[in-house]
Amino acid sequence: MAIPEHLSLTIPKSDLPRIVIVGGGFGGLKLARGLRKTKAQVVLLDRNNFHTFQPLLYQVATAGLEADSIVGPLRKNFEGNPNYFFRMVKVTGIDQDKNEIETTVGNLSYDYLVIASGSITNYFGNDEIRKRVLPLKRIVHALDLRHHILQNFEQAVLTQDKKKLQQMMNIVVVGGGPTGVEVCGALSELKKHILPRDYPDLDFSGMNIHLIEGTDRLLNGMSESSGKDSLHYMQNLGINVQLNTRVEGYENEVVQLSNGTIESSTVVWSAGVKGNVLGGIDASAIERSRLIVNEYNRVVGTDNIFAIGDVAMMRCEELPNGHPMLAPVAMQQGIHLANNFKKLFAGKEMLPFKYFDKGSMATIGRNKAVVDMPGGFHVKGLIAWLIWMFVHIMYLIGFRNKLIALNNWVWSYLTYDKGTRLIIRTFNRIKVRGA
Amino acid sequence: MAIPEHLSLTIPKSDLPRIVIVGGGFGGLKLARGLRKTKAQVVLLDRNNFHTFQPLLYQVATAGLEADSIVGPLRKNFEGNPNYFFRMVKVTGIDQDKNEIETTVGNLSYDYLVIASGSITNYFGNDEIRKRVLPLKRIVHALDLRHHILQNFEQAVLTQDKKKLQQMMNIVVVGGGPTGVEVCGALSELKKHILPRDYPDLDFSGMNIHLIEGTDRLLNGMSESSGKDSLHYMQNLGINVQLNTRVEGYENEVVQLSNGTIESSTVVWSAGVKGNVLGGIDASAIERSRLIVNEYNRVVGTDNIFAIGDVAMMRCEELPNGHPMLAPVAMQQGIHLANNFKKLFAGKEMLPFKYFDKGSMATIGRNKAVVDMPGGFHVKGLIAWLIWMFVHIMYLIGFRNKLIALNNWVWSYLTYDKGTRLIIRTFNRIKVRGA
Repeated sequence: MAIPEHLSLTIPKSDLPRIVIVGGGFGGLKLARGLRKTKAQVVLLDRNNFHTFQPLLYQVATAGLEADSIVGPLRKNFEGNPNYFFRMVKVTGIDQDKNEIETTVGNLSYDYLVIASGSITNYFGNDEIRKRVLPLKRIVHALDLRHHILQNFEQAVLTQDKKKLQQMMNIVVVGGGPTGVEVCGALSELKKHILPRDYPDLDFSGMNIHLIEGTDRLLNGMSESSGKDSLHYMQNLGINVQLNTRVEGYENEVVQLSNGTIESSTVVWSAGVKGNVLGGIDASAIERSRLIVNEYNRVVGTDNIFAIGDVAMMRCEELPNGHPMLAPVAMQQGIHLANNFKKLFAGKEMLPFKYFDKGSMATIGRNKAVVDMPGGFHVKGLIAWLIWMFVHIMYLIGFRNKLIALNNWVWSYLTYDKGTRLIIRTFNRIKVRGA
Repeated sequence: MAIPEHLSLTIPKSDLPRIVIVGGGFGGLKLARGLRKTKAQVVLLDRNNFHTFQPLLYQVATAGLEADSIVGPLRKNFEGNPNYFFRMVKVTGIDQDKNEIETTVGNLSYDYLVIASGSITNYFGNDEIRKRVLPLKRIVHALDLRHHILQNFEQAVLTQDKKKLQQMMNIVVVGGGPTGVEVCGALSELKKHILPRDYPDLDFSGMNIHLIEGTDRLLNGMSESSGKDSLHYMQNLGINVQLNTRVEGYENEVVQLSNGTIESSTVVWSAGVKGNVLGGIDASAIERSRLIVNEYNRVVGTDNIFAIGDVAMMRCEELPNGHPMLAPVAMQQGIHLANNFKKLFAGKEMLPFKYFDKGSMATIGRNKAVVDMPGGFHVKGLIAWLIWMFVHIMYLIGFRNKLIALNNWVWSYLTYDKGTRLIIRTFNRIKVRGA
């Protein structure tokens, strides 16, 4: 896409040190907020003008929540702060020698750079799969997946070809982590309560949801109990879980598995993520698609470049591969780095980062969830679901979003109905104007 | 776009007469609902799977409401009715001799056909204008316009070129009907309360909103008082209204007017609509892009084809050009035709349609509206605005939508904040699958 010539990335000069933050995700946003009263010029760059609450993307994808319930405008965090600047640009790389960040509309110099660029979907190098499956990492992915599923059923009522019909009725979800499990749970609710009402012409007993996982258990990042309980829940919901199975290809509506095939027109790819590393970083600082940082989140081999969240790998004895790529790590690192910047500007010593594990959780659907609390305490069922619901609503950024999400959920719970199931695609006529 | 070969438009055969309705707008939806207890097989065709509450499109376009607040799933109206069928297809024409409707996925025979295809944007034959302006007739238009406006300001903060910057700060709205007036009102609220907070780098005293109208007054379909009052309101809001002015071209960000030029990167086209006439109808039944119908909404020269709403022109002495192209006319014709079908099937005489004018209204913004009541009674200001708000919320289809819309409006009113101002574009990677 051509970028108009008259655009440039210009920020007013000031005497304050300039901190450039790349990415307004959980880490970048917490950092920017934490720097509010710091004597620094803060520039936040993001390709979107909004923050996305990624843990609920699957709800948007399955028509449980609207997009605006899980995103919040980034600019709102900057209101009334004269030293704060947000710019909606796409960052393309870094020039370490010049201390400049490179974007599609020009370069910008920094005194300190914080890379909070998060993670992207990992297709494990399989480009053919990348082109044909539906990822679930950004809000546009969620909307695409929702539109795809609904269009799929609209087309199913128009087909008399039994083979094609079955392809449309089969959904394959790849990857048994939280996203895969949550998508399957939500899909099974759609299948049970919503779709038969909307599509009386179709026989949903023939709708099969397959969950394909490469290892021998679900929810690998969580406790064994959570893995077992979620498998049990999945099977009770009628989801066809295949463990120890790899997806090797997807062509002509046929998914090639390591131990067979499944015909399906819908393959959701939640098999993994990798760090979103920017170009221009010294190769010695990159390992497994993440930036190696020290205990202060400083990228190794640099003086003034930091990385937080999914893209950062902070190793220690207990964590030889760094922290898990989770929102709480990113948030804690963002808050911690903001405090360290304050110490730095006050001439004090920075403090090393320590992750405080508050537990982890995944929901499977109505009244069903698994929660691992700190100290090895495991909860499941309704209580786990209520904990999950409470935590997610509390974390949803912005009072208004919380209210709307709660509204939708309560409605959906009481009526067994989902919000809106609309197939809206925007035209791209004016796309050329966009940056 | 290629349509997959395995798709076809197949509806189970039955002994009941088949009524095919083209279009799920105000007229088509009222008709379909009215036919619920009729002994007929009802097939509703629409290119979208949702009904759009068009009078509030301008709210979506100006970030006051989310898309899902003003649309409702069409299938929901058909739940539990075994003789009802909805199909999401694009109708391409009619074969009058064969009694078949033609769609992109094949033909379907009908016993009775009702054309409720509404209206489309009228560019008055100017194809260059059509390609470059932003219409506001469908939900995708509203989302496109919103994204365009927001992207425009995101780009404005990236430009130092004063000429370009001024182009971005100017908005031209063409057409002083209800849509044009309402868009201008909402834009002036954005300018006053929202944008300066979001974009502290920009000087919004330089933002100019122009309203261009070809005739000598605003709100031509309403009373003279409403025209005058709305002009007064517009001018008080700082909107630059130019009456008796035609738009003759738009190229390189310059709007050519009959009496000058305006530089602007945003031209909203609300200059008019025309009937959405389907191919295959006998030319003798078409006039001024509408289908000539008799007092029973039967298309002249046909036995079993009816037309209702914007696309239908029912002439009488008082209305030599038919009824105004308004939602209430479409709704009343839909209800009336449903009753006439019942009479027809019962062997009774059909009744001629009579329009009951409940008045018309337009809102200009916070506390400002104009209402023409039946009998020449005119209301303006806060009371008119409250009437407008009440009527629109009551008409919004579906309890849930009403609640969310009310929620958003109350919030927006109390806080002078708008809901979400997010620039989300969906990818088109999987577009090839769509019908």
